[in-house]
Amino acid sequence: MEAVVIDEILTEVREALARDDWDRAVSLIEALRPADQADLFSDLEPQEQDELLPHLDVEDSADILEEMDEEEAAEVASRLEMDDLVRILDEMEPDEAADLLGDIRPEQAVRALEAMTDADEVRLLMAHEDESAGGLMTPAPVVLHRDMTVEEAITHLRRAAPDTETVYYLFVVDDDNRLVGVVSLRQLVIAEPETPIEVIMDPDVIYVQAGTDQEECARLMSRYDLLALPVTDAQGHLLGLITHDDLVEVLEEEATEDIYRLGGVPEEEDVDAPPWESLRTRLPWLVLNIATALISATVLSLFEGTIAQVAALAAFFPIVAGVSGSAGTQTLTVIVRSLALGEVEPRRGLRVLAKEVGIGIVNGIALGLLVALIAAIWKGMPALGLIVGIAMLLNLIAAGLAGVLVPLFLSLVGIDPALASPILVTTTTDTCGYFIYLGLATIALKGLL
Amino acid sequence: MEAVVIDEILTEVREALARDDWDRAVSLIEALRPADQADLFSDLEPQEQDELLPHLDVEDSADILEEMDEEEAAEVASRLEMDDLVRILDEMEPDEAADLLGDIRPEQAVRALEAMTDADEVRLLMAHEDESAGGLMTPAPVVLHRDMTVEEAITHLRRAAPDTETVYYLFVVDDDNRLVGVVSLRQLVIAEPETPIEVIMDPDVIYVQAGTDQEECARLMSRYDLLALPVTDAQGHLLGLITHDDLVEVLEEEATEDIYRLGGVPEEEDVDAPPWESLRTRLPWLVLNIATALISATVLSLFEGTIAQVAALAAFFPIVAGVSGSAGTQTLTVIVRSLALGEVEPRRGLRVLAKEVGIGIVNGIALGLLVALIAAIWKGMPALGLIVGIAMLLNLIAAGLAGVLVPLFLSLVGIDPALASPILVTTTTDTCGYFIYLGLATIALKGLL
Repeated sequence: MEAVVIDEILTEVREALARDDWDRAVSLIEALRPADQADLFSDLEPQEQDELLPHLDVEDSADILEEMDEEEAAEVASRLEMDDLVRILDEMEPDEAADLLGDIRPEQAVRALEAMTDADEVRLLMAHEDESAGGLMTPAPVVLHRDMTVEEAITHLRRAAPDTETVYYLFVVDDDNRLVGVVSLRQLVIAEPETPIEVIMDPDVIYVQAGTDQEECARLMSRYDLLALPVTDAQGHLLGLITHDDLVEVLEEEATEDIYRLGGVPEEEDVDAPPWESLRTRLPWLVLNIATALISATVLSLFEGTIAQVAALAAFFPIVAGVSGSAGTQTLTVIVRSLALGEVEPRRGLRVLAKEVGIGIVNGIALGLLVALIAAIWKGMPALGLIVGIAMLLNLIAAGLAGVLVPLFLSLVGIDPALASPILVTTTTDTCGYFIYLGLATIALKGLL
Repeated sequence: MEAVVIDEILTEVREALARDDWDRAVSLIEALRPADQADLFSDLEPQEQDELLPHLDVEDSADILEEMDEEEAAEVASRLEMDDLVRILDEMEPDEAADLLGDIRPEQAVRALEAMTDADEVRLLMAHEDESAGGLMTPAPVVLHRDMTVEEAITHLRRAAPDTETVYYLFVVDDDNRLVGVVSLRQLVIAEPETPIEVIMDPDVIYVQAGTDQEECARLMSRYDLLALPVTDAQGHLLGLITHDDLVEVLEEEATEDIYRLGGVPEEEDVDAPPWESLRTRLPWLVLNIATALISATVLSLFEGTIAQVAALAAFFPIVAGVSGSAGTQTLTVIVRSLALGEVEPRRGLRVLAKEVGIGIVNGIALGLLVALIAAIWKGMPALGLIVGIAMLLNLIAAGLAGVLVPLFLSLVGIDPALASPILVTTTTDTCGYFIYLGLATIALKGLL
């Protein structure tokens, strides 16, 4: 729904709340889809949220908390009366309930778990890392046994009548709850009723163990077009499922993380995050930037004599160092994204390096000639043009080298290349750029004057 | 499957091909899943591909072309005999066939379409823009009529026995093929057989028209957790469905596009793309970088006299200009990503601006003090420290302003903020940085000497 429409409904809800007309407020919200309900609800003031929530259906309350931003949901939950909280948690999907319990105060979470009906299921899920398969999964709502027939399976499904979206694939287990196969709901519907499940099931199931990283789970689901990915323990017992809505969330989360890190924001932050939270992650990163900038500053200091003699040299700093920095960033962007999508393998490293250095040479010749010409004409010093041009060529080759080697090396030693590559590559292009350019100028100083 | 395993099978396939043992090669490939088949196939030499393809089942050939990189698939297809091509195209999903036909030579595509059984369906899909809902959709394999009962619907479904993954939601139409509702396969399975479809269907369907941009389609599917999104014409007639595998592809495509553009690579390129293709997009972008760098170069030129007098000033260029550039990049990254995820709305612009300028001031005071101290101690010139510190503070405020205003403005005038923001923001921080720093130095020159 469009933001404008939600804003209009928000105004109406607020007016209804102001005159204590709960029925009107509730019916306005009930008419919306969960994602829109959550958007509207999070735009209310805390006091309005607290007044409204007890009047909503427990299903709607659960939907709203599931769809809201995790931190916001935790804030709302921590202001709830204990019995309201417990009712809502019992209504939520177990994986979402486990996430929410992990985000509120531990004392509150412990008390809520003691009172919950689904406590065991949720406790099991809370035992896993948030960003692992175990943290993403939700218990399978319906599991088939290998000895059932199609007809028995459909009756079993009808009886369970799950209201979840996780039953498009039905996983099949043996007596010991070990995962042995998968049947799609489609196969079940189109097969003859008396067919044994074992005959129509596909025994070759793609699954992960509970400790698998969420990025790897998303890669498998996206590569093999899976709607659900079963999660097992080390012995192959079925623990739960990762569903397609989790996949979409993980994909967006991982893309956002990469974009943030490449942009020098080490931890993801919401645009609405309070300023001190943004400062907490951004300021240390800028201090690190200053530390690396001091390396280039030292190089510039070494050549103070040369700069004092030919101040015109300074005009080309942004071109020699800055433009090569952009070229290095282009290269590292392609490499980092390919690493994230699993498209670059180590054995291909040399081929990619050769290609990027080749691009650096061609870029270097083309841009070197261009800036040589600009420098020669603008400053009327052909020798300056020559120096700028050669420095440009050499630094663009350095940019290509750094743009490939830095992310590949970081990835090999297990550091996220998106996090550290930009700062290391631009430090290289800055430092090399100043050193080559001013070094050449110092050597050629007689020719320049 | 792991890359190492695929490599081993690749070696075996190659050996089989070398001794013309087609059965062995084919059975090795048939044992793999489509995504792995495509990976292996694209690692073969063109000659090997051409020899092998006629020996594969038409289903496997179709799967391989569907899963391969689009450009590679078009290359393989354009080398096929016409009747092989037609058989494979008829076997492919209509939306994939339409995409492939759009990528090969027009004469070949026209001849293939003349010979195809599914030509009408595919022609209809080819009429739509690649990146619109119409270009993404595939015809619905099974459609229900509003007057059917659940039992009739299941019989209809069994008869059609579609082998596609698109039947987890069944869309319901009226006599005129207008979309009137949706039933999930789950609802169909758990409902009593004699229930009329009209009773269990949800008449409130989320749908898009064929011209809708793919990014908007993905946003809807991800927001409302949809497995399939129906596409209609302007009169509400059902044209086709966008399925969850398309959603995943669009999400990855759009994230990659943003990452590339933020990294100064205006057009997405594969890490394996030939070097001249990479040059074609990257070189012009670097030339544009030189053009903007000339602005800072001009500012530096203006202050040549000052630099010649106090060459020590140059040492702090990477800090005053470069570190502020990093701060501006942090801000624009948060804003650009929030715009892409639909989290920033224009009405919130002022609040975000105030926050980011506030961060700029706090960063400026902290980092200004730090670099002032470094400059004063390192160079033994307290006045230089003062100038560097004040320049740092002012330029970090400028970075916050530019980091918010540039992407918001670009977004308002309809330019992708990911594309142009980084270059405009760093040009601003460079130019302002040099101007403020050297301007202050010029004014205070007496104090420094």
